[in-house]
Amino acid sequence: MSAPSPRRIDAASLRGFVARIFESVGMPAPDATTVADLMVEADLGGAEGHGVFRVPQYVRRIRAGGINLNPDIRVERERDGMALIDGDNGMGHLVMRAAALKAIAKAKRAGVAWVGVHHGNHAGPASLYARMPMQHDMVGLYFAVGNANHLPPWGGIDLLLSTNPIAVAVPALNEPPVVLDMASTVAAYGKVKTKAQRGEPLPEGWMIDRMGEPLTDPSRVDEGFLLPIGGYKGYGLALVFGLLAGTLNGAANGPDTIDFNKDDRTPTNTGQSIVAISIEAFGDVVQFKRKVDALIRTLRNSNRLPDVERIWLPGEQSHAKRNKYTREGIPLAPQLVQKLNELADELGTTRLS
Amino acid sequence: MSAPSPRRIDAASLRGFVARIFESVGMPAPDATTVADLMVEADLGGAEGHGVFRVPQYVRRIRAGGINLNPDIRVERERDGMALIDGDNGMGHLVMRAAALKAIAKAKRAGVAWVGVHHGNHAGPASLYARMPMQHDMVGLYFAVGNANHLPPWGGIDLLLSTNPIAVAVPALNEPPVVLDMASTVAAYGKVKTKAQRGEPLPEGWMIDRMGEPLTDPSRVDEGFLLPIGGYKGYGLALVFGLLAGTLNGAANGPDTIDFNKDDRTPTNTGQSIVAISIEAFGDVVQFKRKVDALIRTLRNSNRLPDVERIWLPGEQSHAKRNKYTREGIPLAPQLVQKLNELADELGTTRLS
Repeated sequence: MSAPSPRRIDAASLRGFVARIFESVGMPAPDATTVADLMVEADLGGAEGHGVFRVPQYVRRIRAGGINLNPDIRVERERDGMALIDGDNGMGHLVMRAAALKAIAKAKRAGVAWVGVHHGNHAGPASLYARMPMQHDMVGLYFAVGNANHLPPWGGIDLLLSTNPIAVAVPALNEPPVVLDMASTVAAYGKVKTKAQRGEPLPEGWMIDRMGEPLTDPSRVDEGFLLPIGGYKGYGLALVFGLLAGTLNGAANGPDTIDFNKDDRTPTNTGQSIVAISIEAFGDVVQFKRKVDALIRTLRNSNRLPDVERIWLPGEQSHAKRNKYTREGIPLAPQLVQKLNELADELGTTRLS
Repeated sequence: MSAPSPRRIDAASLRGFVARIFESVGMPAPDATTVADLMVEADLGGAEGHGVFRVPQYVRRIRAGGINLNPDIRVERERDGMALIDGDNGMGHLVMRAAALKAIAKAKRAGVAWVGVHHGNHAGPASLYARMPMQHDMVGLYFAVGNANHLPPWGGIDLLLSTNPIAVAVPALNEPPVVLDMASTVAAYGKVKTKAQRGEPLPEGWMIDRMGEPLTDPSRVDEGFLLPIGGYKGYGLALVFGLLAGTLNGAANGPDTIDFNKDDRTPTNTGQSIVAISIEAFGDVVQFKRKVDALIRTLRNSNRLPDVERIWLPGEQSHAKRNKYTREGIPLAPQLVQKLNELADELGTTRLS
């Protein structure tokens, strides 16, 4: 049974649709536009689990009072090389965009700036913010605490950590930028859920059960634990990224993380950190980008294992999708289009055409 | 056949021994003391592959003219939140120590400071430098380009990347600090070499051969490739850490990396980066440390898989070794003691007693 073929929706229509949805539940129009732009940007890059797919959940949360629609997003602490932002429980996208802009502005002067956030919310894919400094010839780093704990400590069975992601974005000259965006587990929880919904067995290495045995039965995913990459190493990465993005910023981390899938009301106090690094502070920008180009080409054109058709660079496939989807429209599953249109009907806003 | 039991050498004797060795090959006495302190510090933390084990190789390199014994280690570029240091091909430990001190000094004012290095050299374990900011109530991050390429890009067979390590050190209050120090491959190359020397089969998942098949035969390690953690994820981490620590700093990365095991003369132009993050810039230091303590205890005391005796925190075992070895002496393999004493004889310095 093959999945029905996706609808192609052009980015501008989708932005307008999403903005109207958020306006209809009380978000100020300029904020609704900003959030819609960022969500559609996620879909353009192929981060389909972190883009408009999330609209119904965000709307549910807003209607439950779990998001502050008129937040006072403000710089709480600031020095030459850092700032700490209180997101005042605003939409995560607005808070993180403010943090990224602050980091970029500070890095123009200080060379490098690290900006942390507390009382933010889920803000979409990590790469969305790590990529922002690139437009200013900067490298971007992003760390976040995930909004649900799916990871036990190594050797443990209690879900005490999130699969805290990292993103790093490095601009090139003529090549697509290098953009790494990854969770610290072998498989993201979203991928597991998709397999389970389709009834497909999980590849060995994705999950283990409470006895430590490989879990591949899709009907048993609720009994299992995601495996961190490299065993104790991925556990260590999830832990330190959580300390950097959560604890250091005065945000939730570990057992005080709110599961935003199960709880629509309690402020999540989501923590994220973004670092902007001005390339020009370290040396000539064009020379740096030429070196990145050269390394990309050396890796791509190097010898391959049998049956490997191409060596990819991190972010290269996402870049190709962005170009394609900008030209041809964003592919959305018919079920998602239907769900979004039903939401539009319920809120009295225009359907996706 | 069990390995012969190790000799216990007290740290102070070992420091004096190593300093005399380096002085005897022309290193100025204060520098020799600093390098010896840092190398023995590595052994105290259990990083046995990155401590005094390296003395013969460093001496060989110094005698071949591959290290500048009178370097002008200087700040080449500087802004409020960053600095770039030219290590002038000095001993890596001296260059990285200068970089860490610079990062700490700058972070006291700027809150966060990022310091990069070019024309450094191999400097021992990553955690050695990431730990330094902790003494000033700071979090430390360290990225480095390794000194030999053991990793192909994901899907490839050409050794174009090093297993570039990361270290992150976060201080706690009453608990040992959280110190993650890891390469981006499942097994470090040193571990593979140890297995091969002992003729023990490699665990599946450590290496693959040129056909992409698991390589477990210890006599075939030269035909194989280390596997990155999480497949393409570990490849991505090695790549971006290399861009941050190497390319951005104007240091070697990728194909221009010098294999310091095979080439004693060509300057390695090693690149490293250290970030110091002042906790006090983000909030109350004691409150932060209490939260780290609480998270550590929650993780440690959580429920375990069958047959798991204890849940460890990153750096906890190293911390226990440091305490034990400081009291009881550092265990060195008899073969290593013999090798070091032969070197001392050759250089006319005092043997380890």
